[in-house]
Amino acid sequence: MLEPERILRLEGDAVVLLDQRRLPLEEVEVECRSAAEVAEAIRTMVVRGAPAIGVAAAYGIALAASNGEDLDAADRVLRESRPTAVNLAWALDEMRDDPSAEHARRIHADEVERCKRMAAHTAELLAPGTRALTHCNAGGLATGGYGSAVGALLTAWERGLLEHVWVDETRPLLQGARLTAWELETASIPHAVIADSAAASLMAAGEVDCVITGAVRFDANGDTANKIGTYSLAVLARHHDLPLYIVAPSTTVDLQTRDGSEIPIEERDAAEITERFAARNPAFDVTPAALIEAIVTEAGVHRAPYAQSLAGTVVA
Amino acid sequence: MLEPERILRLEGDAVVLLDQRRLPLEEVEVECRSAAEVAEAIRTMVVRGAPAIGVAAAYGIALAASNGEDLDAADRVLRESRPTAVNLAWALDEMRDDPSAEHARRIHADEVERCKRMAAHTAELLAPGTRALTHCNAGGLATGGYGSAVGALLTAWERGLLEHVWVDETRPLLQGARLTAWELETASIPHAVIADSAAASLMAAGEVDCVITGAVRFDANGDTANKIGTYSLAVLARHHDLPLYIVAPSTTVDLQTRDGSEIPIEERDAAEITERFAARNPAFDVTPAALIEAIVTEAGVHRAPYAQSLAGTVVA
Repeated sequence: MLEPERILRLEGDAVVLLDQRRLPLEEVEVECRSAAEVAEAIRTMVVRGAPAIGVAAAYGIALAASNGEDLDAADRVLRESRPTAVNLAWALDEMRDDPSAEHARRIHADEVERCKRMAAHTAELLAPGTRALTHCNAGGLATGGYGSAVGALLTAWERGLLEHVWVDETRPLLQGARLTAWELETASIPHAVIADSAAASLMAAGEVDCVITGAVRFDANGDTANKIGTYSLAVLARHHDLPLYIVAPSTTVDLQTRDGSEIPIEERDAAEITERFAARNPAFDVTPAALIEAIVTEAGVHRAPYAQSLAGTVVA
Repeated sequence: MLEPERILRLEGDAVVLLDQRRLPLEEVEVECRSAAEVAEAIRTMVVRGAPAIGVAAAYGIALAASNGEDLDAADRVLRESRPTAVNLAWALDEMRDDPSAEHARRIHADEVERCKRMAAHTAELLAPGTRALTHCNAGGLATGGYGSAVGALLTAWERGLLEHVWVDETRPLLQGARLTAWELETASIPHAVIADSAAASLMAAGEVDCVITGAVRFDANGDTANKIGTYSLAVLARHHDLPLYIVAPSTTVDLQTRDGSEIPIEERDAAEITERFAARNPAFDVTPAALIEAIVTEAGVHRAPYAQSLAGTVVA
């Protein structure tokens, strides 16, 4: 397991972030010395993953407070850094009353603790010999430690339930091929990276038992926004009678949004796809609750109807 | 339209191939001076696309004959260059009785002519305002001129039926983002490249009217092998009630194989996916006939049951 402080931390007068864009080739840290610099690091995906973004924003506020920056302005620049994740707003709301470094560190530690509880709940759903397929990076890098979907795979591996992990490379930014494969290698878990479009034929060949992903945000009725391609996997999993498990902390729940159509989807630079031609580059898609076998939060395993099963979910 | 001889030709003592690996950045030609060099160019995908591979192999035999090479050995090395396409074997069989340059050029011209007939048949299936999604490159580059699926888009565009083309980038080798986008740009057809995993959410958003792809090989009952990801699109199209049209010449039909499970699927180098971690890299997948709305050959539009509708299909 990656130590949480290796992923991000507040140290002296800087928020220090492991630069996830340069993994796995090199481990380089980026030091941010103002809330604006943290916001820029979030926007450019030095740090990514909904819970990790929330933690980074909390550290950004703590840094701003210690710098004597205008905290309203710091809140604003951080809040606008990426539009889809809801943990970002949640962490900033949390920091309003107490912008201290201790508070930010507690938010970080709580996020990691939630991951471990989610992982234990998810492992209960898996049979021995499971060959899981995952998408993007819902790992320690994405949550600030341990991971949501990857955390579940770590726990399943420790319990002897996991045989193999198929890792969608996850175009355009290859978080699967770069980050998830790196985390699985670190944990010595057998894995193979695949082109995103190869998942269907592996399912048809009977080489996949379940799909496990994280979530950027899910709504009152269970509609779930996650990295582009998750909805595709959801449809494919349903066609092949395979369960899709979404593993995400309660900080990802947005009980205010009524359904998936209200979730703002970030459109990123076309150059991430191709620098030569026109392109469309939505960063996320929305998977309707009907295609999800279970949503696992730190509170437990939620099943349809999600409007009821998620209603009691509150941040611990 | 790309002139067929710009894509590949027999010239003097060489088979000259446009190096498709370097498009769209630069137009470079590779000169092959023996059947073995043509086979190597096919293996390394200087030239790719099932019909274009067949034409290249025919030119390779004509070159071998003019060089005084052992024609059985030339046939063997070319036949083994790539395992999935059936046009390759078809073209080599054709060249056995008459290994002349004229014969190879006639095979090439016939292939282009078949594309134009397929395109006309396919355009009949499309309504005005069509927003089509295509995968990989079933263009002039893949067939030696005009193209199968892209040829159909060219004809539909000329007839005022086509509004927009979504181009799957087509990992790992990006034939969509590099080759199909280049061909569409050359023809001034509106298009946007997308990550392969974004197709599903565009379908869900109502931004796609049909999926049109080529085929590497299809069988007596309509099961169709094509670039990895085609099966994924087939499942997604069915889920969203969108038709999938396969456009491919009769040289792609293998009436000897009984169903898709008998089609050998080429597994390519894992390094095409990632040089750093373990990977699986199947080059093709098989789409069962049940997911295909129609298969279009130069003979016309074939619909299920394909065992009957394809049975009369013979090479013109």
